[in-house]
Amino acid sequence: MSLSADQQAEIEAQRATPAPTLRPTVAALEAMLFRPLPALDHGFVRVIDYMGDDAAIVQAARVSYGRGTRRVSEDAGLIRYLMRHRHTTPFEMCAIKYHVKLPIFVARQWIRHRTASVNEYSARYSILDREFYLPAPEHLAAQSSANRQGRGEALAGAEAAEVLDLLREDASRCHDHYARMLNEAPRDPARQGLARELARMNLTLNTYTQWYWKIDLHNLFHFLALRGDPHAQYEIRAYAEVLSRSVQAWVPQAWQAFRDYRLDAAVLSAQMLAVVRRMLAGEVVGQADSGLGRREWAELAAALGRPAA
Amino acid sequence: MSLSADQQAEIEAQRATPAPTLRPTVAALEAMLFRPLPALDHGFVRVIDYMGDDAAIVQAARVSYGRGTRRVSEDAGLIRYLMRHRHTTPFEMCAIKYHVKLPIFVARQWIRHRTASVNEYSARYSILDREFYLPAPEHLAAQSSANRQGRGEALAGAEAAEVLDLLREDASRCHDHYARMLNEAPRDPARQGLARELARMNLTLNTYTQWYWKIDLHNLFHFLALRGDPHAQYEIRAYAEVLSRSVQAWVPQAWQAFRDYRLDAAVLSAQMLAVVRRMLAGEVVGQADSGLGRREWAELAAALGRPAA
Amino acid sequence: MSLSADQQAEIEAQRATPAPTLRPTVAALEAMLFRPLPALDHGFVRVIDYMGDDAAIVQAARVSYGRGTRRVSEDAGLIRYLMRHRHTTPFEMCAIKYHVKLPIFVARQWIRHRTASVNEYSARYSILDREFYLPAPEHLAAQSSANRQGRGEALAGAEAAEVLDLLREDASRCHDHYARMLNEAPRDPARQGLARELARMNLTLNTYTQWYWKIDLHNLFHFLALRGDPHAQYEIRAYAEVLSRSVQAWVPQAWQAFRDYRLDAAVLSAQMLAVVRRMLAGEVVGQADSGLGRREWAELAAALGRPAA
Amino acid sequence: MSLSADQQAEIEAQRATPAPTLRPTVAALEAMLFRPLPALDHGFVRVIDYMGDDAAIVQAARVSYGRGTRRVSEDAGLIRYLMRHRHTTPFEMCAIKYHVKLPIFVARQWIRHRTASVNEYSARYSILDREFYLPAPEHLAAQSSANRQGRGEALAGAEAAEVLDLLREDASRCHDHYARMLNEAPRDPARQGLARELARMNLTLNTYTQWYWKIDLHNLFHFLALRGDPHAQYEIRAYAEVLSRSVQAWVPQAWQAFRDYRLDAAVLSAQMLAVVRRMLAGEVVGQADSGLGRREWAELAAALGRPAA
Repeated sequence: MSLSADQQAEIEAQRATPAPTLRPTVAALEAMLFRPLPALDHGFVRVIDYMGDDAAIVQAARVSYGRGTRRVSEDAGLIRYLMRHRHTTPFEMCAIKYHVKLPIFVARQWIRHRTASVNEYSARYSILDREFYLPAPEHLAAQSSANRQGRGEALAGAEAAEVLDLLREDASRCHDHYARMLNEAPRDPARQGLARELARMNLTLNTYTQWYWKIDLHNLFHFLALRGDPHAQYEIRAYAEVLSRSVQAWVPQAWQAFRDYRLDAAVLSAQMLAVVRRMLAGEVVGQADSGLGRREWAELAAALGRPAA
Repeated sequence: MSLSADQQAEIEAQRATPAPTLRPTVAALEAMLFRPLPALDHGFVRVIDYMGDDAAIVQAARVSYGRGTRRVSEDAGLIRYLMRHRHTTPFEMCAIKYHVKLPIFVARQWIRHRTASVNEYSARYSILDREFYLPAPEHLAAQSSANRQGRGEALAGAEAAEVLDLLREDASRCHDHYARMLNEAPRDPARQGLARELARMNLTLNTYTQWYWKIDLHNLFHFLALRGDPHAQYEIRAYAEVLSRSVQAWVPQAWQAFRDYRLDAAVLSAQMLAVVRRMLAGEVVGQADSGLGRREWAELAAALGRPAA
Repeated sequence: MSLSADQQAEIEAQRATPAPTLRPTVAALEAMLFRPLPALDHGFVRVIDYMGDDAAIVQAARVSYGRGTRRVSEDAGLIRYLMRHRHTTPFEMCAIKYHVKLPIFVARQWIRHRTASVNEYSARYSILDREFYLPAPEHLAAQSSANRQGRGEALAGAEAAEVLDLLREDASRCHDHYARMLNEAPRDPARQGLARELARMNLTLNTYTQWYWKIDLHNLFHFLALRGDPHAQYEIRAYAEVLSRSVQAWVPQAWQAFRDYRLDAAVLSAQMLAVVRRMLAGEVVGQADSGLGRREWAELAAALGRPAA
Repeated sequence: MSLSADQQAEIEAQRATPAPTLRPTVAALEAMLFRPLPALDHGFVRVIDYMGDDAAIVQAARVSYGRGTRRVSEDAGLIRYLMRHRHTTPFEMCAIKYHVKLPIFVARQWIRHRTASVNEYSARYSILDREFYLPAPEHLAAQSSANRQGRGEALAGAEAAEVLDLLREDASRCHDHYARMLNEAPRDPARQGLARELARMNLTLNTYTQWYWKIDLHNLFHFLALRGDPHAQYEIRAYAEVLSRSVQAWVPQAWQAFRDYRLDAAVLSAQMLAVVRRMLAGEVVGQADSGLGRREWAELAAALGRPAA
């Protein structure tokens, strides 16, 4: 992540002028505002604005005239109740806005979450920087042999080196040619320059883009549950982890409820529940006589903290 | 609108403790925060929270690192450009949250706007107050003879008096019986009391309910364009007018652009444009040879500030 | 449920003219089309149109050129995989459209599901029928003493009789006065008649309304999970049950997956999972030393098929 | 556009087996079903399924028990009324599903329309074909000098040839290296192969992807209004034109209303209307004394069919 001196100055200028407000404020999130939280090799997440706090969830659930909060323990209890019973609308009453810099292939997964607002940097209007994502060696993973859409161990040796070289060279060459087609670098007065909206098609999918992204807390939790999951691709998970830190600072009670009832919870199917009942009745159940497929058996074992075999 | 002393005290307590923030703040909206703005006979709109300001629209459109604003005239120009070309996403970057008290039949129209978040006071859980909407004499309108879904002049004399009596008596009696079925007033230890979720079905549609309502600026403009329109029912228009005042205080540049390009603008159909062209070429065109239906002709005349006949 | 002879004739006329189509068709759902499935005392659900079938889910998930289906067992397996891993978009590829007649207080809960399309019968434009919901004796429930938003046993004896009388009389009187204010029944040439959009406010919330409602399968499952739940109010659950029958006829494989992984599944929180692990390790755990609140303990017991005490 | 023989056979197999249905059917759209409609050099649009027809719009607007249609002229009149007054929900009652093959940079614009359902071919799970978009000579446009996000005339001569070479070579090389990194072509048993989810990042943005896309008619009209507009990028406009043909075949009355009241209509701002009024009063108005900016003046001139100067 490399911000120019100008960009850093703009950020600090924005941090220099607090103003009084009657709205809910969260000191721990104010401390983060505007400053880039790094993600991947050149990306970042910046918290730009937020609305609401833990108490605002309670206030909306109670449709109250004032703050609507009572003792901290009562409020936390209500938030846990809402999360547990999937009363999602009070969580929609909080919202947060981020500025995110991310590779295009990550942006393509991210945008599938439709219940958010996005303003992306326009490559029809402007020119994209020469920055692209290259995996760190430990993330340069081989195709998983077990899972068609997963990854296995990191590539090693000559194969790893070659892959990294190909990624770097292709991305560099494509961006050089992008600049050349635009007639930007070098600029030749005898050429017209290809339209920006066309030239961009020559860029590779690891090129960085950026956007403003605003989402309410309920939908952000949904995003974090899916994109922070171990089955999600590492590169978007890296962003989910950074976002999670900001949520934890912003609404610590809601975050804890989210951990307990979503992230660290498990959905047990009708068939899984039947197996657990048999186990609790003292029966020794194996995958073969469980009625579960191999993968579901492994998932149940993981949920119960038992070996899958 | 009648707030209890407790409710007023809660509101003023919330107004008593400003806190510093680095986020955009709008003094004119801070001045309104939490205090009820009256609507209809017992309703209100309270601004509870907001995110963003005029500059935040500009900042998102530019995907900028700092405030992103330039000269006031440049920013206003960009906002007007975005509104004119229906670049709606930057307006989604601002959001506002209201507490609204409104009659149920108004709530039923209001809720049709799906791109908002709502927490309504629960009549499964709590008991609704004995408050219902009765139109002021000038709003007690007769059915329009011209428009099947419109209203004409106010009823007069004995008919008006009888209608008002019926509305008042039916709503009162239904609420009294609601309380009686709930075994709340009077409370009789020998009775069990009907479930709240059932008893509420005895209430009339002019009974007041209340909710927290959060919406982004783009969708709020859409709401105001539809519900502030002269064809909208007066009772929801009354709320649209109050909401409009808060928007004007909050984002004055966006509001002005909305007036010029939406509220005070007109959509001319292909056929209407053809008529205007003929008129500009000097032809005298009447409805009969305009190719327009009677209503469209009247709408065109209104847009051009000419008599419809 | 009472359809007029005209309405029944319209329905049968629509059923009389099959046409050939290349689109997926489902015989079991065609057999239901247009005919009213009763719900509550005067309500109904009519299936009006549908798009897709079980195979369409598979086809979309595979982004295939043809039908995309393989052996029945493979397709069912894929559908179960999608449901289990919350890959929700293939289920959005199926849609269904209903005509529903329902009491207004049920409509107010129903409409909270925003990801659907609705056209409601307009009481600004038309006059509502004199039909209102009255609970059958076994559904005339007392307020629950344990749960602030639930119901207990049915009211008995004189209290039940009085409540039913009040509900019937208030709804009848309010509708009579509605007709009188409209100057419809009786019609008096000396009166103008109140505007329809105003007169409707005199109706009680158990008056029936009707609407066309279109929703995709993913969002319909979400609706059925929430509104078919034992904690949902009986009156909307009655509709969820009728809708469920149509879904079962339409997409039997998806329905079975929905049963196994949602309806009959359970979400166990981090704390619940810890308790199950202790139990499986042979420990006897009671609520007091479980770390769970009383309600969560009861929910866990229910999921595990054990007594809560 | 090049479908394999297998794919063509699958399509024709699907067209070979009509089934009777009671649902609305549209012969003109049935004739199009499944067969690819070409777009750009390798892309296509295939209509996969549809729900509803012109009459279904009318039926929903009337909340009717039967077909709800009357004389053709009355139905068309109602559809025009709905379109003119932005009563959008009856148009949501129709839906259509497409299979689309399109370059990734077009997909990135397309996906910004959030009110649709999408299943994209997964490059985490599968391998993308070696197909990429290369503009035809007449679409290889220079950057516009007047409009920062537009294009000017086609590039000519050596510059055009070089640009095309760069686009072709970079896309080809990047795909070759993609296959090499995947260890697919050639396949070397000594290599592990990079994970698919990583290798895809080496592809250029003109690589073709494909998806299933389902949308309701109201939101499709919105898409077509924005993406069929002359200001939209040519490459997505090419798809909008193909989609438009299918809509015209499907709902001809709604399409005509859409043309008259949206596509061929114009929004005149408050300031533009003031200028038209002055002109109609006989005044000669020029841009300088119009109060309009240069661009708005040009837009008004275009709407009125007058020279802008």
